[in-house]
Parts: sequence; structure tokens; C-alpha cells
Amino acid sequence: MKLISNISEIYRGNSDEPVYENGYILIEDDYIADMGYCHDDEFHQYQQQKNTTEYNAEGMIALPGLINTHTHAGMNLLRGYADDIELMKWLKEKIWPFESRMQSDDIYWGTKLAIAEMLQNGITTFNDMYFAGEKVVKAVAEAGGRGVIGLGLIEDNDGETGLKEAVNFIKEFQGEAQGRITTNLAPHSPYTCSKGYLQKIIRYAEELNTFLHIHIAETRDEVENMKREHNLTPVEYLADFNFFSIPVVAAHCVHLTPNDIKILADKDVSVSHNPASNMKLGSGIAPIKEMLAEGINISLGTDGVASNNGLDLIHDSRLASYLQKAVKEDPQVLALADLLQILTINGAKALNLPNLGLLQQDYQADIILISSKDKPHFCPDHNQLSNLFYAGSGADVSTVFVAGEKIVEEGKLLTMDMERVYQEINERAKKLA
Amino acid sequence: MKLISNISEIYRGNSDEPVYENGYILIEDDYIADMGYCHDDEFHQYQQQKNTTEYNAEGMIALPGLINTHTHAGMNLLRGYADDIELMKWLKEKIWPFESRMQSDDIYWGTKLAIAEMLQNGITTFNDMYFAGEKVVKAVAEAGGRGVIGLGLIEDNDGETGLKEAVNFIKEFQGEAQGRITTNLAPHSPYTCSKGYLQKIIRYAEELNTFLHIHIAETRDEVENMKREHNLTPVEYLADFNFFSIPVVAAHCVHLTPNDIKILADKDVSVSHNPASNMKLGSGIAPIKEMLAEGINISLGTDGVASNNGLDLIHDSRLASYLQKAVKEDPQVLALADLLQILTINGAKALNLPNLGLLQQDYQADIILISSKDKPHFCPDHNQLSNLFYAGSGADVSTVFVAGEKIVEEGKLLTMDMERVYQEINERAKKLA
Repeated sequence: MKLISNISEIYRGNSDEPVYENGYILIEDDYIADMGYCHDDEFHQYQQQKNTTEYNAEGMIALPGLINTHTHAGMNLLRGYADDIELMKWLKEKIWPFESRMQSDDIYWGTKLAIAEMLQNGITTFNDMYFAGEKVVKAVAEAGGRGVIGLGLIEDNDGETGLKEAVNFIKEFQGEAQGRITTNLAPHSPYTCSKGYLQKIIRYAEELNTFLHIHIAETRDEVENMKREHNLTPVEYLADFNFFSIPVVAAHCVHLTPNDIKILADKDVSVSHNPASNMKLGSGIAPIKEMLAEGINISLGTDGVASNNGLDLIHDSRLASYLQKAVKEDPQVLALADLLQILTINGAKALNLPNLGLLQQDYQADIILISSKDKPHFCPDHNQLSNLFYAGSGADVSTVFVAGEKIVEEGKLLTMDMERVYQEINERAKKLA
Repeated sequence: MKLISNISEIYRGNSDEPVYENGYILIEDDYIADMGYCHDDEFHQYQQQKNTTEYNAEGMIALPGLINTHTHAGMNLLRGYADDIELMKWLKEKIWPFESRMQSDDIYWGTKLAIAEMLQNGITTFNDMYFAGEKVVKAVAEAGGRGVIGLGLIEDNDGETGLKEAVNFIKEFQGEAQGRITTNLAPHSPYTCSKGYLQKIIRYAEELNTFLHIHIAETRDEVENMKREHNLTPVEYLADFNFFSIPVVAAHCVHLTPNDIKILADKDVSVSHNPASNMKLGSGIAPIKEMLAEGINISLGTDGVASNNGLDLIHDSRLASYLQKAVKEDPQVLALADLLQILTINGAKALNLPNLGLLQQDYQADIILISSKDKPHFCPDHNQLSNLFYAGSGADVSTVFVAGEKIVEEGKLLTMDMERVYQEINERAKKLA
């Protein structure tokens, strides 16, 4: 058993009030066996048990591992390759040509870097839409985090063959790495997959009892084109053939009508909000306040680093909050308690991961510890969650447990030779550019 | 002499292209005596001179020290005290009562914490509008950064006595701490200072050959009230009695008409953009793209941490860029080169600090070194300035020189007993709350 002791504040994930101050978390195998105060009798009993390893978390606060509901991990090779450029020029002249040269080993190394960055920033689970799935599986299995992996499907590129591969990928890898790997079907978007193709995907999803991961209404152009062609918004168009009859994680959802929001709420669609990417690419501003008012399950995605350019959900949650506050001229929207839920339990719900996203008995032991020691931005200590979300970043994450295993310590990933990763990435990035 | 050697990239401050790769900076007394490549003969000559101390900056990039053109440093005691609250409630029920209990020693300690946070985040100069000026001077003198200090003037609170104190403060402290302290007059705003009071301030400013620091058009209400009362916008109202006849740093400028922008441009007013504060308080979004198009000198301010909640201009510059890109749906606005200027040379111009804000021969040796070592977000190295501004933060700052003195090393301030600062702040913050 593992005993994390002297935690200055434990945040369960569903409130901005700590459940315990000076608390402990007891880990048995891969789950949370108990939680409480360090002045409790139980704590001393656990401490004295022979098979207990104790981790002293003095001066640290504990949160559930953060959940990234939309990314393309392999794109880490493209960080800083093309910034401040108009969208179609960015895609056609920079991103797509670079990606077309990428091989599966490039994706493996790019994904490794992405996972390292995410874990060090406290992101323990990510929902990936990209290629070379078996390489992504390998990277996740080696690193020790959790991956929810779907092979991106663009009809013109992937067609029937790609769809079969995606289906076989699910059959082969669902539940791999002691359950740390789960899968889904990831059609790219309603403008790159026809209705017929999407209908086939729905049938496979039903058959496999999985869910869908898709981009919807990311740009104004996408919406305008769909309206011109079908006289429907992308959301209306998809609803029209019951795309939302099975669970869907819809990334972006920037340009929505009130009716779109109603449909997403009615159909219980989970929305992955990607504020950094939407802002940096000039895509626009998602109506998060309105979606929350309709009870839509909002979680956060980093998107790939070509359009972010980091994988830091603590940073991005502040961005999401400040952006809504600014646009709505309302400082009350996306408050601390909302952010914590959005980063944790809402993500777990979106990705169909029960027993994840909360610090609670019998939940998976995915725990991050934030060090406030010797950092001006954690002083004074009026509210340490505020200090983290509104003044901190992923750089404040000190220790990370996933499924009960400690894989980050003092901000460093224990499961990867990072020097090797940096070298591989820099060499490959140079060649690909 | 000090020789910073093996700098992987030196950014001068006015371009997103490094001027030197594998370069050096030679410091003599408080200024930059030379710069060049480490393969130059000069470099080896400098290295061999007897009185040379060498600092190896391998794996680091160099930028000019960052300049914060609007803050209230003493407010660091209020970090995390009141978040996510409607503006007037926030001010009346939380901020003002807390501030009314603050004594000059509280401001001293709050300012010390703020300076430590700023220096560790690479901010070497700040423009402060607050109270207890002699305590702010003491804190700056001890810490080793640069402060531009004006005593905040609210007519009803400060009146003639306060104005005389502010004038005497300038006479006493201008140029203190070997020139690291400069001063200005800081009337709070056109809605807390009457026309007559502001006119007196202008006359004093002319007499003292100083400049003004003021809040303008921060909230929608402020603009509406001014229009109701005077049938003029705040900018028009001030222009009407030649307030802009002397140099002005105008903080916020969120709610502006096209005519306001024209006036600010014509009168060469420097605008201090405070994106984090404006967003977090729900004040709105300043028209930075439009102001840049008119050639207005834009710099960045953190504002106080009650509304930010950190003092990190690297973070805030990304926020400024992403916000404009999102609102204008234009990924090209506020590009990397703009951000670098806004953080450095534009700030120096705003604060009337010649020979500051660029890495250039004969300029002041205010230099920050960013460490990219063992950090996923600096990999790959397509563009390290992009990695810093679009994926990094103040936490990446490793070494800071101000006026040729090294005062931060490995991210830690060398000139303060931080344990003492944390203890004082936590005790005082608790009492004041």
C-alpha cells in the first residue's frame, strides 16, 4: 500500500473547497482505498502497517489527474513550426506538407514527447485522434499514463480500408496496458466524411459499444459551407441522421446557433472546448457560458501543439475562464469550481471512464500533487486553488500517480529517457521541416 | 567586466529573429559594452582579460529585461482573496475594505513579494501606482530591480496635501538607487480627479519635467457615466483640456471609439494594455489591433494581482496575442515580433527610459536568460522565441541581470530572504482578511 501523507489540501474535483486540510490518501493497487485527516487514528494505523510506503506531501495540494479530451499527440513535432499565419495558408503550405512526410516512427516519438509534457503538467489521460495507433499504444504503455485512442478517419484518405483498420484497432487494443488504454472511433469531421461513411461508423460504434470523437463547427467557413450545401448547420446536419444517437465527444463547437446548443444538450453530447487553439488560429470564441447554462458536459482539450503551442490544461483552464469573462463581460462565469470539474470529472464522463476524475474511495488512483513551496505566486495562501488556476501552470505539478504508480517526481517523468526523446525529436523535426 | 557566453540565441528586442546564435554579451559597469559571436576573435580576447567574470549561458536564450507598464505592487497581499465576483461587489465588499486596513509596512512587504515575483519572471522594470512611496523605494532599492513610482492620487482621499506629497516624492526620489528609481505623477482616473485637480497635476508635471500615469476607459460604466455627465468619452474629455499635452501612460483603454483612438495616436499617448485584468474582471477587450494600426505605442501591464492573479508578462503577452487573434478572427495579429517589442522597447518608451528595452551596445545591461534545458515545451527547436511566448512562462526565466548586476540565478532571487517574505505576507494577509 502507498500512503500519501501531510497533504496540505485535498480537492476532490467537484468543488473549490478542499475536502481535507492536512490529509492523506491511501492507495491499494491501482485505486484509492481511503482518504482522511492525518490526525485520524486510521492514518496512524496505515502508517504502521508493514507493507506501507509513505510519500510525504508537505506543502502540496492534491487534485485528480487532469483529463485532456481532444489532442493530436503526434503533432508535437510541429511545435513552433508555423505561427501567426492565416488558417488555409497555415494548413496548405505548412502543416499538411509537414504531416505528409511523417512516418509512424515520427508519430511514436512525437507522441512520447507529448505524453511526457502532459504528465509533467498533470494531465494523466488524453483523448487522441491521429494515425499510427499501435505506436501511440506503445508510447502510452511505456510512459504509464492513460490514452483514449481513435484512428482519425478522413474519407478521401482512409475510406473503407481505414475504417476497417480503425475497427480492428479497437478490437485489438481496447483495455490494453492493464486498462490504461481505451479506444473510440474518430471520424475527422462532417465536412471530410460523407453521411454514408458516418452512418457506417455509427453502426460500428453501436456494435463495438464505443463512442465517437469528432471535430464540429470549428471555423466560420465550415459552418457557412455546410449551410450553403445542405441548408443546415453542422450540428443540425449530423442530428438529422441521428449521429448523436450514440455518445459523442465533439471538439471545438465554436460557431453554434441557439438551436445547435439545444440539440447538443438534448442529445447529451460532450463538448471538448479548445480555447488556446481556437484563439491562436483566430477561429473564434465558443459559447461556453450558454452551453453550461443548458447543462452540456464541457471538458477541455489542448488540441495539437501546432495550434496551442503547449499541452498545459492548467494554463488553458485559466484561458477558458478569462476568455468567457471578457467576452460576456461577466467575472462570475467559469469560476474556480467549474474549472476543476471541467478538468477532471467532466472529462472522465466525456471519455466514458467510470471511477476516474474524482479523488474518492474506490476511484482510480490518478492523483497529482502541486508544490507551492518557494513560489511567490502561491503566496499569500488565501486560496491555493485560485493561486494554481489563476496564477500557476503545469510547471507547478510536482508528483503524479497514475493507476497507483508514481511516474512523475519533482516535476520529472520517471518512465522515459528524456535526453533521448529530445534528441530524436530535434533530429526528426529538422528533417521533416 | 562580465561576459555572458555561449548564449544559444540573442534577441535584441525589436525582431523575432535572433541577432546572434551562440553569442556573447559583454557588460561593463551597468551597460552593454559589446555583443557578438563566440567564434569572434573579440570574444576570446574578452575571455582572457584578467578582470572578466564569465557566465556560461549554454542552452539559454537572451532577451532584454521585460517592462511592466502598469501595476499596483502592494496589492500582492490580495492574491486569491476575491475571485469570480461582480466588479462593484468585488471592490466594495472585498478589495476596498482590505486595502483600508493596510498600513505602510504591509505595502512594503506586499511590494517586496511583487518585486520578487516579477524579477523571477523576468520583469526588471515596473511602473507602480500605489501608496507609501518611500516603502516602495526601499523595496526596489533592496531588491535590485527598477521601479517607476508614482503616488496614486484620488482627489477626495488625497486632495491638495496628497498632491504636494506626490510632488515632494518626485523631488526626493527621482534617480535614487543609482538611477534605478524614477518617478511620475499618477492621478487615478478622470472619474476620481476633477478637471481642476488634473490641471494642477499637469502644471506640476511640466514643472518637474515628468510624465503622467492614469487609468482611462477601463469599464463600460466609466465611459457611460462620463458621456452622461459631459457628453464626451473619457479620452475626449481629457483631450478637451489638453491633458495629453505632456507624455501620458494610459492604463487599460478598453472601451474606445475610433475617434478616441485617433486622439491617442495624434497625442502620442502610450497605452498600457492589461489583458489579464480586463479579462478576469469582465471589463472587456481593448481594441489593440486598431490601436496598433494607428501607430499607438502599446506596452503591457499586469495590473495588481487581485485581478490577474500573477505578475508574469510572458503569460500575459500570450494572452494578449491569443485574445486579439480570437476576437478579430485573425491569426496574424500580435505576432511574435510585436510581442517582443511590446514587452521591451515599447515599455521603455512609455516610461521615458532611454537606453533601456533593447540588447544593444551602450544600452543598460538589463538582460534575462531563458533556460530551455530539459523542458518538453522547448522541443523541438523550430523557434525558441515561439516556444517561450506561446508555450512557456515566467517559470522559464533562469538568470536576470539588472544594471549589470546578477540578481536572479536558476530562477531564484539572490537579493531577498524569501522565507521571511512568505512568512510576513502570510501573517499580514491573514490579519488583514
